[in-house]
Amino acid sequence: MDIAALKRDLEGLKIDDHPAIVQQKSRDFYWYSPVLKAQLDHVTGDLIVTPKSEDEVIRVLAACHRRGVPVTPRGSGTGNYGQAMPLSGGVVLNLAEMNQVKAIAPGRVVTGPGAVLAEIDKATRAHSAQELRMSPSTYNTASIGGFVAGGSGGVGSIRWGGLRDLGNVIRLRTVTMEAEPRVMELTGEEVLKVMHAYGTNGIITEVEMPLTASYDWIDVIVGFDDFMDAAGFGNDLAIQDGILAKLITPIAAPIPYDYFKRHQKFFRREQSIVVCMIAPHAIEAFVAFVKSGKGEIVFRADQEADLKGLPPAYELTWNHTTLRAIRVDPTITYLQARYPSPDHLAHVKAMVDRFGDEVPAHLEFIRFDGAIGAAGLPLVRYTTQERLDEIIRIHEDNGCWIFNPHRYTLEEGGMKRTDDVQLAFKRETDPQGLLNPGKMIAWENPDYDYRSGKSFLFKGLQKVG
Amino acid sequence: MDIAALKRDLEGLKIDDHPAIVQQKSRDFYWYSPVLKAQLDHVTGDLIVTPKSEDEVIRVLAACHRRGVPVTPRGSGTGNYGQAMPLSGGVVLNLAEMNQVKAIAPGRVVTGPGAVLAEIDKATRAHSAQELRMSPSTYNTASIGGFVAGGSGGVGSIRWGGLRDLGNVIRLRTVTMEAEPRVMELTGEEVLKVMHAYGTNGIITEVEMPLTASYDWIDVIVGFDDFMDAAGFGNDLAIQDGILAKLITPIAAPIPYDYFKRHQKFFRREQSIVVCMIAPHAIEAFVAFVKSGKGEIVFRADQEADLKGLPPAYELTWNHTTLRAIRVDPTITYLQARYPSPDHLAHVKAMVDRFGDEVPAHLEFIRFDGAIGAAGLPLVRYTTQERLDEIIRIHEDNGCWIFNPHRYTLEEGGMKRTDDVQLAFKRETDPQGLLNPGKMIAWENPDYDYRSGKSFLFKGLQKVG
Ligand SMILES: Cc1cc2nc3c(=O)[nH]c(=O)nc-3n(C[C@H](O)[C@H](O)[C@H](O)COP(=O)(O)OP(=O)(O)OC[C@H]3O[C@@H](n4cnc5c(N)ncnc54)[C@H](O)[C@@H]3O)c2cc1C
Ligand SMILES: Cc1cc2nc3c(=O)[nH]c(=O)nc-3n(C[C@H](O)[C@H](O)[C@H](O)COP(=O)(O)OP(=O)(O)OC[C@H]3O[C@@H](n4cnc5c(N)ncnc54)[C@H](O)[C@@H]3O)c2cc1C
Repeated sequence: MDIAALKRDLEGLKIDDHPAIVQQKSRDFYWYSPVLKAQLDHVTGDLIVTPKSEDEVIRVLAACHRRGVPVTPRGSGTGNYGQAMPLSGGVVLNLAEMNQVKAIAPGRVVTGPGAVLAEIDKATRAHSAQELRMSPSTYNTASIGGFVAGGSGGVGSIRWGGLRDLGNVIRLRTVTMEAEPRVMELTGEEVLKVMHAYGTNGIITEVEMPLTASYDWIDVIVGFDDFMDAAGFGNDLAIQDGILAKLITPIAAPIPYDYFKRHQKFFRREQSIVVCMIAPHAIEAFVAFVKSGKGEIVFRADQEADLKGLPPAYELTWNHTTLRAIRVDPTITYLQARYPSPDHLAHVKAMVDRFGDEVPAHLEFIRFDGAIGAAGLPLVRYTTQERLDEIIRIHEDNGCWIFNPHRYTLEEGGMKRTDDVQLAFKRETDPQGLLNPGKMIAWENPDYDYRSGKSFLFKGLQKVG
Repeated sequence: MDIAALKRDLEGLKIDDHPAIVQQKSRDFYWYSPVLKAQLDHVTGDLIVTPKSEDEVIRVLAACHRRGVPVTPRGSGTGNYGQAMPLSGGVVLNLAEMNQVKAIAPGRVVTGPGAVLAEIDKATRAHSAQELRMSPSTYNTASIGGFVAGGSGGVGSIRWGGLRDLGNVIRLRTVTMEAEPRVMELTGEEVLKVMHAYGTNGIITEVEMPLTASYDWIDVIVGFDDFMDAAGFGNDLAIQDGILAKLITPIAAPIPYDYFKRHQKFFRREQSIVVCMIAPHAIEAFVAFVKSGKGEIVFRADQEADLKGLPPAYELTWNHTTLRAIRVDPTITYLQARYPSPDHLAHVKAMVDRFGDEVPAHLEFIRFDGAIGAAGLPLVRYTTQERLDEIIRIHEDNGCWIFNPHRYTLEEGGMKRTDDVQLAFKRETDPQGLLNPGKMIAWENPDYDYRSGKSFLFKGLQKVG
């Protein structure tokens, strides 16, 4: 790689090669996983390029194509599987400054890829009381391009399903990695070609997302003596079609008391909780609903005198649950699970009974194929890689699906099989395999055996210096 | 009943006793049912009273209580089970002029009981691009009070479930039928005390309903060669969490061609259809979704050059399907069914196979307890009362639930059992049983045997003149 020559090609663009900056911008939240931390700690790019327009993106891709330099796109770098880490070095394409909110209409917003989710909502709320359907709990920092290319769902998925559900992304504009990069517009189911593809088959330069009505959601936390009562309450609430909720998150004791330091005073240590975001006009029905069950409201943001210092409730949920635990106890890690419906609660109970406090439970209720489902982000009190693998195996043997967050490839973190549509699209858009190398096994090693039980090891991974 | 004395008591209020007007305002759409037509055709009140305020309502109720005169509330009289018909005569309390839209806020609207649904939406759309969550297909004429007291759901129920689901009515203000009528405010699950109680236990004088974002919904009709393909498509569409639809209605051939006269040119006679209302920002995903199946779009309002003379799509659905059929062929009637989930489509198929064109199928997809369900409003080519009863029995023997629309009592049209909450509330609010007499069997005859197989006959029913 002739980085010096590339730098000359890119003259006039915003470039950074200060090693500390380059290293910082080559990292994401991969360190969440003790496994990825060990594998990727040394990984770094050679150059950070920060385009301000699609034209500049095209210039960068053309130059890198000519010089055979890998390009790894980056939004805000909050992915936690090393998605945005340049395994073979090269250019990190930092899209953070393509962050314009370009157009807002009923049900729609058009933005640059680097727009931060909370900033988009700020604009759409002010414009017409609208907001994005769903956001990761990294709402305040993550970019929309990174969410589409690297995320899956989050706060709001209880109502709208996952990001990949048809209709949850209206249009994507992408640029190919070729001698003369082409611009493509993808709509309908075509958006799936690049969604959650980690930027391996195109750089997203514009995003059109559906909007929904925004409300001043009320954070409410309901406490329970027993975790399965909390889970049951969450499920019963989720199937209330008339009570508008944006978030329903059961979390087992002692996670809330031990790790949610700033909310600690609201909990007893043996209390499991359900974190909710409720529309103001649903709050009376919600309170009536709570009264009919075993829980008690332990926190209600609209009735709390002093909210200073308290994070928003969603920053206790999704992957923030894990983050808060790790901050207190760095030996903790986590898993990502789906408990198949309709008997998802029975699956949850089986795992809770089996592992107890070694794998403290954390559920996220979501909508899935028109029904209510339970995803899990249970914590794991990590001992060894072997035990972690065993915990995964026991989940799978019990019919739970695991999306392994301790792998940096698309397939291993997903359904453990080739996505033919995304692979075919990569052949079209990145024939030389220069976009985010090492993340798509189907490209690197079409004959890979997913049942091997081992982690895929990308041959192009930088050697430890 | 000393109606002359009552008239003196009510001096200064808007009163009508012209026999033609009284008869007209004593009727609803009961004639839909050949059974109810025969039973209720002669029913008429003695006096129409049209209050303009809650104070006037209180005055009317106090006077009628004193004189022992029955009071039957009336919104717009579009109910189709004789709900608003004064079986024992007396006062018809016409609430049509208490139709003010009083307050609009994010997610909420407060109105008088007589406000027409379409008029409410007109105000909330103009105010802040909001609309009611659901409406009957009589949207353009029905009142909100009549919907709450006599309806069950409709257009929008695919997203929000039924009217009775907790949260779908925020607050009701009611007046009791006592010597000194009391005003009550019901919130949370308390609203269920008077919902779908046909006004037998209180007069609703104010309604607070939740709102949702309004869109310029696009009417789309998809055609299929086979009805079960249409039903399957409707179900598959309904479980698409990312495609925002307000209506998904499969209707079997030859209903569309034979009875939807103004849309006839868009159909072949052997075509079954699915009528949809799709949010504009979901239309691209919707079109992609249609392409992946067996249907073809035969009508799309946003691409039709000339919409003049065409009713909105929702006026082909819910009970308007029946209405249009009856207009062409007055011998037709219908049933109301629920096909239990999760195998609702198998239940539908069993009935379609069994009855063929004697009971042409019409489904409404709705949300029910957090999942997609299928309600049915199949047409029936009516021959005899015995055959109608047999058709009902065969449905029930096959596990389908029938809500018999050929009965004027709450229980027979519903779950065929006492609603203890509503009965207890009536004891509190109408101790003399003067509100809409004859509609609640539990009040008239606590020992009634619902398994008798016969229709309940209200002893107080006016004798045929
Ligand atoms: C505490 C915490 C909580 C989280 N909660 C959630 C959650 O609730 N739901 C969820 O889905 N995820 C969650 N995540 C993961 C992550 O935060 C989100 O997916 C987020 O949306 C990623 O956005 P980003 O801008 O940080 O993307 P980055 O991390 O910068 O990038 C993500 C991926 O997208 C690619 N990419 C970025 N921009 C582009 C572009 N313009 N074109 C093509 N490819 C691009 C990158 O190469 C990378 O592969 C969480 C992570 C953390 C650390
Ligand atoms: C063509 C057609 C289509 C229909 N489609 C639907 C549908 O999709 N969904 C549905 O649910 N229904 C449907 N219906 C039934 C009916 O139109 C609706 O339920 C409608 O909302 C009733 O409103 P209304 O103002 O006409 O009520 P009314 O018929 O006037 O009254 C209905 C009941 O409520 C009582 N009532 C009225 N006002 C008050 C009050 N202020 N306080 C206490 N009690 C009161 C009356 O006594 C009566 O028992 C349909 C009917 C027809 C004819």
